[in-house]
Amino acid sequence: MIKRIGILTSGGDSPGMNAAIRAVTKVGLNSGLEVFGIYNGYKGMVEGYIEPLTRESIGEIVTRGGTILGSARLPEFKDIEVREKAIRQLRKRGIEAVVVIGGDGSYRGALELTHMGINCIGLPGTIDNDITCTDYTIGFQTALETIVDAVDKLRDTSNSHHRCSIVEVMGNRCGDLALWAGVACGADIVVTSDTGFDEQDILDRLRDLDMIKKKKHAIVIISEKITDVHQFAKKVTLNTGFSGRATVLGHIQRGGSPCPFDRMLASQMGEKAVDLLMQGIGGQCVAIRQNKIVSYPIEKALVMPSESKKPLTNLFERLS
Amino acid sequence: MIKRIGILTSGGDSPGMNAAIRAVTKVGLNSGLEVFGIYNGYKGMVEGYIEPLTRESIGEIVTRGGTILGSARLPEFKDIEVREKAIRQLRKRGIEAVVVIGGDGSYRGALELTHMGINCIGLPGTIDNDITCTDYTIGFQTALETIVDAVDKLRDTSNSHHRCSIVEVMGNRCGDLALWAGVACGADIVVTSDTGFDEQDILDRLRDLDMIKKKKHAIVIISEKITDVHQFAKKVTLNTGFSGRATVLGHIQRGGSPCPFDRMLASQMGEKAVDLLMQGIGGQCVAIRQNKIVSYPIEKALVMPSESKKPLTNLFERLS
Amino acid sequence: MIKRIGILTSGGDSPGMNAAIRAVTKVGLNSGLEVFGIYNGYKGMVEGYIEPLTRESIGEIVTRGGTILGSARLPEFKDIEVREKAIRQLRKRGIEAVVVIGGDGSYRGALELTHMGINCIGLPGTIDNDITCTDYTIGFQTALETIVDAVDKLRDTSNSHHRCSIVEVMGNRCGDLALWAGVACGADIVVTSDTGFDEQDILDRLRDLDMIKKKKHAIVIISEKITDVHQFAKKVTLNTGFSGRATVLGHIQRGGSPCPFDRMLASQMGEKAVDLLMQGIGGQCVAIRQNKIVSYPIEKALVMPSESKKPLTNLFERLS
Amino acid sequence: MIKRIGILTSGGDSPGMNAAIRAVTKVGLNSGLEVFGIYNGYKGMVEGYIEPLTRESIGEIVTRGGTILGSARLPEFKDIEVREKAIRQLRKRGIEAVVVIGGDGSYRGALELTHMGINCIGLPGTIDNDITCTDYTIGFQTALETIVDAVDKLRDTSNSHHRCSIVEVMGNRCGDLALWAGVACGADIVVTSDTGFDEQDILDRLRDLDMIKKKKHAIVIISEKITDVHQFAKKVTLNTGFSGRATVLGHIQRGGSPCPFDRMLASQMGEKAVDLLMQGIGGQCVAIRQNKIVSYPIEKALVMPSESKKPLTNLFERLS
Repeated sequence: MIKRIGILTSGGDSPGMNAAIRAVTKVGLNSGLEVFGIYNGYKGMVEGYIEPLTRESIGEIVTRGGTILGSARLPEFKDIEVREKAIRQLRKRGIEAVVVIGGDGSYRGALELTHMGINCIGLPGTIDNDITCTDYTIGFQTALETIVDAVDKLRDTSNSHHRCSIVEVMGNRCGDLALWAGVACGADIVVTSDTGFDEQDILDRLRDLDMIKKKKHAIVIISEKITDVHQFAKKVTLNTGFSGRATVLGHIQRGGSPCPFDRMLASQMGEKAVDLLMQGIGGQCVAIRQNKIVSYPIEKALVMPSESKKPLTNLFERLS
Repeated sequence: MIKRIGILTSGGDSPGMNAAIRAVTKVGLNSGLEVFGIYNGYKGMVEGYIEPLTRESIGEIVTRGGTILGSARLPEFKDIEVREKAIRQLRKRGIEAVVVIGGDGSYRGALELTHMGINCIGLPGTIDNDITCTDYTIGFQTALETIVDAVDKLRDTSNSHHRCSIVEVMGNRCGDLALWAGVACGADIVVTSDTGFDEQDILDRLRDLDMIKKKKHAIVIISEKITDVHQFAKKVTLNTGFSGRATVLGHIQRGGSPCPFDRMLASQMGEKAVDLLMQGIGGQCVAIRQNKIVSYPIEKALVMPSESKKPLTNLFERLS
Repeated sequence: MIKRIGILTSGGDSPGMNAAIRAVTKVGLNSGLEVFGIYNGYKGMVEGYIEPLTRESIGEIVTRGGTILGSARLPEFKDIEVREKAIRQLRKRGIEAVVVIGGDGSYRGALELTHMGINCIGLPGTIDNDITCTDYTIGFQTALETIVDAVDKLRDTSNSHHRCSIVEVMGNRCGDLALWAGVACGADIVVTSDTGFDEQDILDRLRDLDMIKKKKHAIVIISEKITDVHQFAKKVTLNTGFSGRATVLGHIQRGGSPCPFDRMLASQMGEKAVDLLMQGIGGQCVAIRQNKIVSYPIEKALVMPSESKKPLTNLFERLS
Repeated sequence: MIKRIGILTSGGDSPGMNAAIRAVTKVGLNSGLEVFGIYNGYKGMVEGYIEPLTRESIGEIVTRGGTILGSARLPEFKDIEVREKAIRQLRKRGIEAVVVIGGDGSYRGALELTHMGINCIGLPGTIDNDITCTDYTIGFQTALETIVDAVDKLRDTSNSHHRCSIVEVMGNRCGDLALWAGVACGADIVVTSDTGFDEQDILDRLRDLDMIKKKKHAIVIISEKITDVHQFAKKVTLNTGFSGRATVLGHIQRGGSPCPFDRMLASQMGEKAVDLLMQGIGGQCVAIRQNKIVSYPIEKALVMPSESKKPLTNLFERLS
């Protein structure tokens, strides 16, 4: 049986990472393991920035956004020499297995380490919901709440000035943040990498909302990296009866106290990760699928096709 | 094909009922139906307090708690004469089918009406998560957020005064609110109708938290109608090193703007209800199961056993 | 004694405008007046878009952002013919006096109308706190809460990634939003039109925070229209150890349910405005000064010097 | 010039105490002082539970409710021997002066210590706004936000069920929380120790609201310790058309992240306290009066009459 495990957070942070760190630590300690925090992602693993986690060090973190372990990029981790150095750091401390919380880039590192003898389990920590094997990633629902709260605020002021609010949200590869926010806020138009961006069509629909449907304001939600929303807002002002205003929500979407859903999800996934490691299993990633906590081999997870967005897109349209 | 449907909310209100009303109305109108609001639950059906719902009448309601249709109790609805009167009111207006949002008491009425020739579909609108056929009811996640927000606040002050905060939450028949809140808030003890209430044992555990584990404060979450929490708080003060303080969250748990999860769930379920009615189906209730929107015959749904709470209870204990 | 008053909102909206509308309406009705809503600012006055306000029409608006009366610009209002047309619309309906909620641009219109025989009273409705005669404008504290909430979120994620978050807030002419947010959030650097923007100096201070003070992250708050924050973020990344990220909060600052302070301020000011009009007074604007609700002649108010920001700037520096 | 100061929090905690601790520490350190945290109020002073505060120990606390220094009661502090012991603990560490954050009970201790040679400055830390010399106490506005948020939630559900929500808030000696909340929430009735509690009259008014004014729901806000609100709710159900429901907000009112107003107030007052101590002044308490930060001799402050509540009570009535 293993005795010592490590945990790290990697890639962009997401609300709920701390709840996952807490769960891994508490479940680990209560199962008789020693638990080590590896700081600043794989970088800290290579540099040996590794310290024991205790009940005290994780006290009260369940309520807080960000990650107490920090996160950093380390592209060099794809080099075997770098990974070997990391493994030496782990072995020196007797750490036999590691939980990696992050996106699918982080999963690759976890898989490589497993191949080199350190069992690793990945947890999906990203607000974008862009890990195809899981129905929800840790942080997605909280980011959505930040977006919906912001759009509810914009609606107040938009409504008072006959405006079209254009809101850019995160999630380029996966439009779930935009699409869910669209349904939840009663937006008029949602643009994602799936829907494509037909500028002329959108301007036509906005004109229709203004002149035919007599709407007092309009809300457009658009995934990042699709168009320059500030330029587009100007075109809305020029070409429709609405006054266009763009808002780029940016990094506030990554912050904030995790919502109960994310705290629960992170706790369940953290528990599962420890259980897998104690069974001697590595190279897997944890997911919630059909409302059950499950795990998949990372190789398989990385190539899973994403679920069709068709039903949600249809719902959005039927709510218009 | 049907042409006119009605919608009502019944029983205790829950956040997201308005989002469901909006979804039924919009999907209905976009499918060529006329949609009627039946006010104050079955009472309004009997009294004929029924009015058309338009795009305007549901504008912006997606963000608001409560129900614009109101709710009221009508125990007499179990009498066939009363229901016959209700059906006459519907027929007079050409309403052929009805969506009923409420708890399982409301489902019984929906089933009776279906037997009498008015197809009804039930949607689970209650914060208690006590409808066994669905993994989540509309309003559960929002109520949880209200609870978690309150407990996070109590923690601040509890921590500053070496207190034991005893928090009574809703959900007598189903302990999900208490158990989820326990995991999400990092509570020390959770008491539900499943766990039972062994007062002496809890006092012992609190003494242990104070004297052995040296905790600065403690949080106990307890489902309603299990004990008098104010009396229990006094016993905590007398028998442990903590100063006990009870808080009964009460009806604030039913209010508030629905969280995105509940807005989405309500929207999907509203869509499903309209689709079922358009297919000529009645006597069913909509549920989310294994992350899919499904429906069950109400007779079957009412006798479904609830899922085991064991995994969650275990998780809670392993996080201690 | 006057019998009929009107109320309008003008310029950019601010949270609490609805609370002021409610106060003017309720205090007016309870004082035996009839109260009329003038929609879309001076534009609606000219076009005669004017309707009676009743207890029902203002029900529940105290909790909501934006303005139910709408707002619009009308530069032509400086032409006397346009104002004469407006006055005819008022006279036609027997409206003898008007409450104008808005910024100091709106005050000028109010003054002109007073000179032409319609007593007007101005209320300071703007989030920028840029009306010099009043210590607080209606909406300032709520906007501040939105900013502080956003910065608290950015801190989570900033902290996890060794970032410097650069946050652009509203208030170009008056740096209060930036300065108050700086104190309230524990920001490292605040840039306003008062402090000036010495790019090189700020980069030096950030390097110092990173290398000498070993801070894990930094927060810079900057008033709008001072520099291109996205460009500046790039320079931070290039020239300091922090990774720079810019966030432009934009219009979300204008929205949201008003905080109690703003609801109270709006209520007190609305009451004062009605009292002044009932005393036959016009051409004044209401202010809170030394924690008392007072009024000043608009001519005088428009040229009052602003209070020195020195004490707050000193406080900010002493908190570094 | 003094070199070492201490700081403690005493009595019930309030949001913003941490912001005051931060301000005293930072301003102190930046002025060349050493700053010591005295834990658990006067108790820790007597027991010598005193530790240096550094920039690190107060990092990020500005955003958090409660007090990192803890608080506890020590009635024995009125005995001179106990205070002498406390003073020995201070002298042993070279602490020459102390900032005391708390209610007026705490001020008495501060005054006694000053008489015995340790200059003390009091800061008003209590949510009740019951310190007559200051217009606002630290925590009052945040507590108000918690109340208003809860009442806004109750309104949703109250409205849906034709209910009368009776909400008990803190502040027995001073009705400001109830009165401000009444104005801010648009409550129908407010009961404080100033207004008195005429049960029959209130029941009459509620009947009038139901039957004459046709209100869909009613909200009554009542200060603590005036009546048993649960019993009163039953009488409302029996004697009016509304269904009465009582909610006791309790200790959640003391928690939560302080609002910007309280963070600023705490910061300004902390700065003032350090400045007074550096000038060799003790036996004073800091206040905000006429929107200026000032100080008064504690003897004088303790006997100041409270401001008349008449204007606010009138405003509340005119808004009905």
